[in-house]
Amino acid sequence: MSDGRLLYLNENSRKFAGFNKEKSPFVIIGIPMDITSSYRPGSRFAPSSIRESAQYIEFYSIRNDVDMGEIGFNDVGDIILHPSNVEENLSRISSVISYFQESGKITISIGGEHTITAGIIKGTKREGLCLVSFDAHLDLRDEYMGYRYDHACVMRRISEYGVKIIEVGTRAVSKEEIEYAKQKGILFFTPQQIRLLGVKETARRIITSTQECKSLYISVDMDGIDPAYAPGVATPEPDGLDPTNLLDIINLIADKRVIGFDIVEVSPSYDTSGITSVLASRIILETAATVYKARSL
Amino acid sequence: MSDGRLLYLNENSRKFAGFNKEKSPFVIIGIPMDITSSYRPGSRFAPSSIRESAQYIEFYSIRNDVDMGEIGFNDVGDIILHPSNVEENLSRISSVISYFQESGKITISIGGEHTITAGIIKGTKREGLCLVSFDAHLDLRDEYMGYRYDHACVMRRISEYGVKIIEVGTRAVSKEEIEYAKQKGILFFTPQQIRLLGVKETARRIITSTQECKSLYISVDMDGIDPAYAPGVATPEPDGLDPTNLLDIINLIADKRVIGFDIVEVSPSYDTSGITSVLASRIILETAATVYKARSL
Amino acid sequence: MSDGRLLYLNENSRKFAGFNKEKSPFVIIGIPMDITSSYRPGSRFAPSSIRESAQYIEFYSIRNDVDMGEIGFNDVGDIILHPSNVEENLSRISSVISYFQESGKITISIGGEHTITAGIIKGTKREGLCLVSFDAHLDLRDEYMGYRYDHACVMRRISEYGVKIIEVGTRAVSKEEIEYAKQKGILFFTPQQIRLLGVKETARRIITSTQECKSLYISVDMDGIDPAYAPGVATPEPDGLDPTNLLDIINLIADKRVIGFDIVEVSPSYDTSGITSVLASRIILETAATVYKARSL
Amino acid sequence: MSDGRLLYLNENSRKFAGFNKEKSPFVIIGIPMDITSSYRPGSRFAPSSIRESAQYIEFYSIRNDVDMGEIGFNDVGDIILHPSNVEENLSRISSVISYFQESGKITISIGGEHTITAGIIKGTKREGLCLVSFDAHLDLRDEYMGYRYDHACVMRRISEYGVKIIEVGTRAVSKEEIEYAKQKGILFFTPQQIRLLGVKETARRIITSTQECKSLYISVDMDGIDPAYAPGVATPEPDGLDPTNLLDIINLIADKRVIGFDIVEVSPSYDTSGITSVLASRIILETAATVYKARSL
Amino acid sequence: MSDGRLLYLNENSRKFAGFNKEKSPFVIIGIPMDITSSYRPGSRFAPSSIRESAQYIEFYSIRNDVDMGEIGFNDVGDIILHPSNVEENLSRISSVISYFQESGKITISIGGEHTITAGIIKGTKREGLCLVSFDAHLDLRDEYMGYRYDHACVMRRISEYGVKIIEVGTRAVSKEEIEYAKQKGILFFTPQQIRLLGVKETARRIITSTQECKSLYISVDMDGIDPAYAPGVATPEPDGLDPTNLLDIINLIADKRVIGFDIVEVSPSYDTSGITSVLASRIILETAATVYKARSL
Amino acid sequence: MSDGRLLYLNENSRKFAGFNKEKSPFVIIGIPMDITSSYRPGSRFAPSSIRESAQYIEFYSIRNDVDMGEIGFNDVGDIILHPSNVEENLSRISSVISYFQESGKITISIGGEHTITAGIIKGTKREGLCLVSFDAHLDLRDEYMGYRYDHACVMRRISEYGVKIIEVGTRAVSKEEIEYAKQKGILFFTPQQIRLLGVKETARRIITSTQECKSLYISVDMDGIDPAYAPGVATPEPDGLDPTNLLDIINLIADKRVIGFDIVEVSPSYDTSGITSVLASRIILETAATVYKARSL
Ligand SMILES: [Mn+2]
Ligand SMILES: [Mn+2]
Ligand SMILES: [Mn+2]
Ligand SMILES: [Mn+2]
Ligand SMILES: [Mn+2]
Ligand SMILES: [Mn+2]
Ligand SMILES: [Mn+2]
Ligand SMILES: [Mn+2]
Ligand SMILES: [Mn+2]
Ligand SMILES: [Mn+2]
Ligand SMILES: [Mn+2]
Ligand SMILES: [Mn+2]
Repeated sequence: MSDGRLLYLNENSRKFAGFNKEKSPFVIIGIPMDITSSYRPGSRFAPSSIRESAQYIEFYSIRNDVDMGEIGFNDVGDIILHPSNVEENLSRISSVISYFQESGKITISIGGEHTITAGIIKGTKREGLCLVSFDAHLDLRDEYMGYRYDHACVMRRISEYGVKIIEVGTRAVSKEEIEYAKQKGILFFTPQQIRLLGVKETARRIITSTQECKSLYISVDMDGIDPAYAPGVATPEPDGLDPTNLLDIINLIADKRVIGFDIVEVSPSYDTSGITSVLASRIILETAATVYKARSL
Repeated sequence: MSDGRLLYLNENSRKFAGFNKEKSPFVIIGIPMDITSSYRPGSRFAPSSIRESAQYIEFYSIRNDVDMGEIGFNDVGDIILHPSNVEENLSRISSVISYFQESGKITISIGGEHTITAGIIKGTKREGLCLVSFDAHLDLRDEYMGYRYDHACVMRRISEYGVKIIEVGTRAVSKEEIEYAKQKGILFFTPQQIRLLGVKETARRIITSTQECKSLYISVDMDGIDPAYAPGVATPEPDGLDPTNLLDIINLIADKRVIGFDIVEVSPSYDTSGITSVLASRIILETAATVYKARSL
Repeated sequence: MSDGRLLYLNENSRKFAGFNKEKSPFVIIGIPMDITSSYRPGSRFAPSSIRESAQYIEFYSIRNDVDMGEIGFNDVGDIILHPSNVEENLSRISSVISYFQESGKITISIGGEHTITAGIIKGTKREGLCLVSFDAHLDLRDEYMGYRYDHACVMRRISEYGVKIIEVGTRAVSKEEIEYAKQKGILFFTPQQIRLLGVKETARRIITSTQECKSLYISVDMDGIDPAYAPGVATPEPDGLDPTNLLDIINLIADKRVIGFDIVEVSPSYDTSGITSVLASRIILETAATVYKARSL
Repeated sequence: MSDGRLLYLNENSRKFAGFNKEKSPFVIIGIPMDITSSYRPGSRFAPSSIRESAQYIEFYSIRNDVDMGEIGFNDVGDIILHPSNVEENLSRISSVISYFQESGKITISIGGEHTITAGIIKGTKREGLCLVSFDAHLDLRDEYMGYRYDHACVMRRISEYGVKIIEVGTRAVSKEEIEYAKQKGILFFTPQQIRLLGVKETARRIITSTQECKSLYISVDMDGIDPAYAPGVATPEPDGLDPTNLLDIINLIADKRVIGFDIVEVSPSYDTSGITSVLASRIILETAATVYKARSL
Repeated sequence: MSDGRLLYLNENSRKFAGFNKEKSPFVIIGIPMDITSSYRPGSRFAPSSIRESAQYIEFYSIRNDVDMGEIGFNDVGDIILHPSNVEENLSRISSVISYFQESGKITISIGGEHTITAGIIKGTKREGLCLVSFDAHLDLRDEYMGYRYDHACVMRRISEYGVKIIEVGTRAVSKEEIEYAKQKGILFFTPQQIRLLGVKETARRIITSTQECKSLYISVDMDGIDPAYAPGVATPEPDGLDPTNLLDIINLIADKRVIGFDIVEVSPSYDTSGITSVLASRIILETAATVYKARSL
Repeated sequence: MSDGRLLYLNENSRKFAGFNKEKSPFVIIGIPMDITSSYRPGSRFAPSSIRESAQYIEFYSIRNDVDMGEIGFNDVGDIILHPSNVEENLSRISSVISYFQESGKITISIGGEHTITAGIIKGTKREGLCLVSFDAHLDLRDEYMGYRYDHACVMRRISEYGVKIIEVGTRAVSKEEIEYAKQKGILFFTPQQIRLLGVKETARRIITSTQECKSLYISVDMDGIDPAYAPGVATPEPDGLDPTNLLDIINLIADKRVIGFDIVEVSPSYDTSGITSVLASRIILETAATVYKARSL
């Protein structure tokens, strides 16, 4: 892999469940950027921690009747990052992602802070692109403490790139973000609404809203899930999604248009029983299985 | 603040989310009493831990469409406590509470062990007062190991003061407590009953039962919540309430009669991922927002 | 107790909640075998940890209106185990169990890894015996890494003994295990199915399926429960049972035919807030209360 | 053991390394009193934690060439304590201690907070009694926060009983305590002095100072040791003794006059690697071996 | 305090041991910058953690016979920092420091990462300034991963400002750093050399080397100390200083020329028993006491 | 690498500090065997944990003036192990070791429990082989709980192979082991003796005792070191070696005859601050640097 865009790719990391299957349609990329998190740092350790926990899960998806153990993953390693320059890092991420997406791969990015999604989208063909983000927060601030590339601003930046955004799990917001969302027509679902609507109706509304999209990207900020299930995150926020609902929604909305997804904001130092990393592995597995099945049909 | 009743108030503590808004209707008081807990001590650290976690939450309440960031809180500090004399401490608590309630403030007390609620109620005008307590336990023992001011006896003492008590989340009880509750007409709801009745019917029954009350007090023993969501408590008890239901019930029953509430029994040493303190902060925020809205109507 | 089968029983352990009631119908046996766990070891500490947590729970079962504090338990201590010879250990377990079951006792075994259940069943009269296992895994592999007495093979071994098996909570499986289960008519319920069917219908199907059984054995691999509620297990697996459902199902299916049950795979080192051990204590208490009540009718 | 003084003795606890040897000259008593600790609570769990860690150490003392595994210990259980009444508890402790000392036993008390030593001394024949205390603190305050039976006052109380006191490891003191010590002729050694004098000269001075004593009591507040070696204590204080020096000093000063000793202030919740409890076990073992050998000569 | 240089000072933090004594010669400033740490993040929490641990230590210095409880500290709060712009932050730090040093105060800065020392020195009158740094590392790299303001480069930057540097505790270095140190005449002492020379001779050499200095600054990177005593640091490095030696050296070299000092690189998330924060508090106390005494003579 | 002896070598593990230098004289092999540990399990995670911590240390050895960053290591991966069959595993270890030693490599084995050393020695040419073991225990039992391949028996087995053994750090022993050692002429040094003799004299005696040896093997059971420095071990034992002395002794005794060494008994679950793994990395680095330098002369 000698393309110039891979200059900052370090292939020597631990592999996701030991997988190194070059022919797999799924490429795994670790992006341990952990600079702007305001509360609990440590997402830099998430790629390593999630890869390790993946060693102990079963790779057969009952939900999809797909054996991901056979399909495998191509874990290409971690992106090497600048210690403090976020914009430089977004540019490195963008290069690596564009390389793999042009190679026809579905990219699975393991953060790192949510900000990385801006870099991923920069590296993605954005015409007709829609993004579904699971998150407790809207991340729609224009700036945070004077800075426009904070994790609290990432969906604002992506929205400015012209990507259509739908947010699921919303519950910790500022008034300004809600107003921006309404003004820009950004659909969001609070956990309370999802409990009222049910998983199927929620999924139906997302499907309707993404009907025109040419490609889909899914971003899973693990704080979208309730802290009981995902305690090891940078910014835990009570009253969240339960993992079953998240997996069910992804199962219903992900189809062959999905060009990539990410799992961000896991902070292993606060994941004292390791259950957040295991859950992240399981979400990767089930999302990949759903996409694989959708593409096979 | 030179009233004699504030002799034991130490104003120099960390502030709840940095709030120090003197004009706020909400006064926050730390009461780190941690003497009689029989199992896992450490509730003495809860005021500090909950105040810190509050720094990282959003202060806008979607449930109530109220921005508590604007209304703010007046964090007046911690009560200085005697190392072992519970009755002396209840008297100190009573003085501070009576001062602030007479000043027209809604007091938010952060425990410490549940015993503090006896001191709070002592400092409260009790005519027509009703108390709704969320708790895994009834706390209706006459004495515990020969002692009448243990946290396992607090609702018995308050009941003896003539306050009407309703308990929510009950599941770890002795036979004697159930008999006492039945004999005294103390209504209680087990999580199983709440699942059967639903949140709305549960709330309706509590509302009916408190119709005659002139003022309301809410006590949240965090062990009322299931340990998955609130692991950092002195006495975890499985098969409990989920936070959404607790927040929904408070949202339905709290009205302008609420003169104060407390959050007790958080034990930060056992809250290894910090999620119990964050949840306590969120309960404070949502309860205050509900009360604020009710008073504004 | 001088029967030769008790040669390897060490009576000097800590007692379950301090109970030592010889006349109780319930015998508690610690079996700290912790050899084949592939992921997170430490189930050797579970008997001690669960016994300690039991000191702090209330022994009155609201579900059954039975006061287990009065009935009590006869905690006979731990089985002394060989450091690495699993088959030798299964034989020791078998001896101890057969002694107490022949004495007419209901045995409550606290593991240790799931493999111990093979030893228990070896020591049990197997004619007409049926086993209901709560587990994330099917444990139906023929061998694991070349070994036939691994915890991942335990239900396969027991199935080979001619015992009818029903599994509840299944979600992490290999394709081979599913095929074996189907071929042998082993009924299993995924959490998704249980959510669809509801607890009552699930229980009804288990009851139907066990109608012909002469005796019942219940095995609770704590990883059957969702990691939010039981983080301290050897192999956490997301998207699991919630404890309320598990307790409700046991409450519906356990009757006077139950001759014993076990709690296995708790790994206290990963139970950072101690909630898994408390839950295990509560499951022991409620299951015993249900069985006691069934036998009293 | 039906003496009235044993009313509050609960024999059903876990045993120290499983020992229950009635003929041993050494009696072990757990005293889990944990009421007045101002900083990090949890010494209530120390008797259980130290007893468990003792299961894994070797019982042969190289220092003394004595096999304590042969001599054994008679672990008689824990004293049952009042939840908040310190003085009542000191009286219970006093009764139990006086019973065993009158029976000619050497009592090894495992705290709990340092305050228990006042109860132990109350139960001891005090004529000609001298006490050597290893502690970072002098514990010579007259009162602490208005209370005279706080752990910070224990040596003051014992000094008032007329017992001669020598303190070793002193480094965290108030000016008043130093003045009191000087005025009353209470000898104390800071770690700096011990480094200058050397272990042998320090021991020589203690021996000279205790020459007239008829009986000796040794109290080991684990915070006397440096927090690197004993992190799990209620009040860690840097720049302390290393365990080798403490063991060497005890080895030199303990002789046949020793009528008992205690280990206090271990707080297992803060002993994250368990090394403080193991060290406490080792100190118990070595001190007992030294005393045993001295009595055998 | 309305000087423009205090724009980014947030006065509302928790106070060091509750101290707020405006007349004290010692100003405490929290600088929670935590951006470039390559290994274990979390130094952002150190100011809060160290301030809390200070509540529980005694303020009398036996080493200096000075009661710091009487002299007190003026804790002015934390500097508000940009999420990722290190240079902007160094400029904010520089402003605050210059204000307090011009006011004649001795500044005690609590980091945050070591990089903050560059900001502090920028805000300091540098003519004749010498800096003594306790550190496992030389921090003399020209750049780290392409960045010149990394914590691994801080002494290189300060050296470029023309400040004379002496390093103590050196043991984890690159060859380039050693060569740079030799070339620039930067004196450094490895722990091995200090063991050979002894504390007094080491101090004598430092005193000789700083004889011409007009003012002194002391920087304590807590990783200079051995990880046994200071486990909670960003980059633990074995074979280090013991705290007694560090305190003794500071005691010998600090005199009335000291214009400030800092404690950096504490990472509370890894300080599982809290002993690193307590040690940091004790170093602050003893260093201040030494400086106070030197200025009083 | 297609030699049959490498059948059980899994090359896909994380690399030691990312090193994969095939030409290095040093081969690193992970041997995560964790079956017979009687106390605190988890050494199975040590190879992964030590490799990760190595990423953050400097590779220049001041002690030896050797830059191991240039020389590098060839990390060949982990040995795949049977879940419970110790003897089978020793045979797999023996095969892999014999392959690399025949290839002229110096093998650095990262355990796993101490038992692995028996497998390593089985794979080593034993004529004239001497082994220096750093350990709190003698590991000279004939059997432990009926089993001859327990970690408490490993030096007994190796002694029976005819290898000369010297033990350093001995302090937790049974009387039988001491007698066996004396009878077989196995030299051992307690930490007390080493403090008396000094490091140089201790080393001199070891050198004298190994003068006739044709090749040397060094085994570092991390519990040889004091638990303050190495808390994360299976069996912590107070009053141990400090790491400086251990590194100094290795530095003095290791010469060009060294054909391999191992680091065993690290238990990362108990290494809450990670300092044990960092220390293990540093010991590997310094030992390799010493051997490299000795071979270069
Ligand atoms: Mn986000
Ligand atoms: Mn978020
Ligand atoms: Mn309560
Ligand atoms: Mn309660
Ligand atoms: Mn199982
Ligand atoms: Mn399982
Ligand atoms: Mn003390
Ligand atoms: Mn003390
Ligand atoms: Mn530094
Ligand atoms: Mn450093
Ligand atoms: Mn060993
Ligand atoms: Mn050992």
